[in-house]
Amino acid sequence: MKFTVNREKLQKALQRVGSIIGSRSMLPVLGNVMIQAEEGVLTLTTTDLEIRISTKVDAVVEEAGVTTAPARKLASLVGCFVGTDVVFEVDDKDHIKIKCGTSHFTLLGLPAADFPAAVEFEAQREIKIKESDFKRMIGSISYAVSADDSRKVLTGVLLSARESTVTLVATDGKRLAMQEKTPEAIEGGDGDAIIPLKAASEARRLLEGDAVMTIRLGDKQCTFVAGGFELTTKLIEGTYPNYRQVVPASFARTVEVPTSVFLAKIETVSLVLSDSSSYIILRFENNQLNLQASSAEVGEGSDMVEIAFEGEPFEVSFNPAYLADPLRNADADKIRMKINDPLNPVAIEGSEGFLYVIMPIRKK
Amino acid sequence: MKFTVNREKLQKALQRVGSIIGSRSMLPVLGNVMIQAEEGVLTLTTTDLEIRISTKVDAVVEEAGVTTAPARKLASLVGCFVGTDVVFEVDDKDHIKIKCGTSHFTLLGLPAADFPAAVEFEAQREIKIKESDFKRMIGSISYAVSADDSRKVLTGVLLSARESTVTLVATDGKRLAMQEKTPEAIEGGDGDAIIPLKAASEARRLLEGDAVMTIRLGDKQCTFVAGGFELTTKLIEGTYPNYRQVVPASFARTVEVPTSVFLAKIETVSLVLSDSSSYIILRFENNQLNLQASSAEVGEGSDMVEIAFEGEPFEVSFNPAYLADPLRNADADKIRMKINDPLNPVAIEGSEGFLYVIMPIRKK
Repeated sequence: MKFTVNREKLQKALQRVGSIIGSRSMLPVLGNVMIQAEEGVLTLTTTDLEIRISTKVDAVVEEAGVTTAPARKLASLVGCFVGTDVVFEVDDKDHIKIKCGTSHFTLLGLPAADFPAAVEFEAQREIKIKESDFKRMIGSISYAVSADDSRKVLTGVLLSARESTVTLVATDGKRLAMQEKTPEAIEGGDGDAIIPLKAASEARRLLEGDAVMTIRLGDKQCTFVAGGFELTTKLIEGTYPNYRQVVPASFARTVEVPTSVFLAKIETVSLVLSDSSSYIILRFENNQLNLQASSAEVGEGSDMVEIAFEGEPFEVSFNPAYLADPLRNADADKIRMKINDPLNPVAIEGSEGFLYVIMPIRKK
Repeated sequence: MKFTVNREKLQKALQRVGSIIGSRSMLPVLGNVMIQAEEGVLTLTTTDLEIRISTKVDAVVEEAGVTTAPARKLASLVGCFVGTDVVFEVDDKDHIKIKCGTSHFTLLGLPAADFPAAVEFEAQREIKIKESDFKRMIGSISYAVSADDSRKVLTGVLLSARESTVTLVATDGKRLAMQEKTPEAIEGGDGDAIIPLKAASEARRLLEGDAVMTIRLGDKQCTFVAGGFELTTKLIEGTYPNYRQVVPASFARTVEVPTSVFLAKIETVSLVLSDSSSYIILRFENNQLNLQASSAEVGEGSDMVEIAFEGEPFEVSFNPAYLADPLRNADADKIRMKINDPLNPVAIEGSEGFLYVIMPIRKK
């Protein structure tokens, strides 16, 4: 096995596939990247047994073959090298000779036969969507995924296909974020899949173009086929809660608030809070939204945002982190808060197709 | 107590004094910054009981006074504020009212009487030196300070005044770094002081000008009086080892090596090592310095640097981290390695007055 590859392209490819590599795995080969050299192209693949990422790089391949190399060491080396091209030569013991400029290295690889094989699966449905759109969709909701393993289905992102609409949903039971979008195409009919957060975050990190990608959905796996990479993940099994029923049918008031100013004020006022279970009070009155917080340990703070609001003043209280999350990830200059009363769910709408539902905090 | 202060200046001053504040101290007042308002000026002071830092900020003081405020909360608030000026008003219960733009806060302070008083001491000697020079001196040696508490004196930086020369020394027993300099003035005669690493590092961080600073040295304390701050630290008690005797009287060979290329190659070749006790082999031959390393786990690597060298080739081995440290902190394009043989101390010289001594590793 022998090939020559551009150093910068190789470095970028190793960065793409490298992030799922854990620091110490039980199986040494999981610390390795599989390198497959065929006519004019290298395929690099990594896996953590849940997720499998691969990417391709152009290369001058003199002798085809496959091996696995320690992924982090190789990425560090390629990052340190000075030179345009890197030459690889691998013997049948998976000793990987690497030359670049004045640098000569031999890394001890492991046989590709030890590397977990890809699991083939049949896709029941396929979604075609722009990479940039899907990247934004994940970003607008993924912060609301639950970190609590006791309800496994909530640790993933629901991807729901209904007629011509795709919806991504995340909830931890205390707030819910959803983003709808009409993709380029849905083939194979309606259906749901729960994607582990790690896979969704990796896909978000890797998506970079504006081309149309394909999401292939099977029973237990799904694959994101994009321009620069392919990512296959196991799906989370189970039934996702009926998220539609938490959205109130109607609201008594709608107030428009400028996103970035509101976020900055929430962050400032929350500084007087001493623990994460505290709340801030929003008071809507006379074209002002007043924010107020206090704690026995630190003190108290208040600030305000100018808004268009008339009518009877009213108050509603929130966990400031839950209130800040959708604003921080909103792709809109203004958000709309939809409120019934201080005891019932409040909705936040931002850019098209985005909906966030949060329970107010009942003050002690 | 009431005053108005420019927001940006206050923010910078809080950053200056804030870094020695620990996250959770036994004494709550140690988490606070003491704020003293006098005619036209604020003095901010923090302490961790070892080190005390103060800095001054111009202010419009309507009513003089002194209080203490939670340092991190205040710094975060001032960083979040939108507005040019911040107005403070403190009542006799140390409730600190703060206004900036639309923001209104009240922080719960603690009485200044609870704040540890400054320890006055008599200076036996004073050193006058340019801030920029002293900053560079600390940087060129402080990485060699020992992290091992069992020999307390080695956890500090030796500051030695001899006639017209100041020498800073750091050693962990395996390597030694020293930097000499003729300062603007030394008053009070010869003497040594051992400065805790944390205080030296804080001084290095804070020094920013080119003005002449004063180092006031007492028996058990010393104070750095600079343009932007005053830092007083306890000294480490004990006798520093005789560092002069570890420097060989003469060397058989001197080789000049370009600093940054050499450093880059050391870092690249060391990537094949699997633990920090490993070594890299330097081989000097025919205008080349070859670097080589290997480990049973990762593999092997070699690289080279072009140097002016003729004569009998020879090899010498080093811990790569100890070899890289002085290069990383050198203020010189080239360093000179002075070598007798592979078993005796090797010296590295860089910019004027710098000397580093390191023991080669005896290969197994």
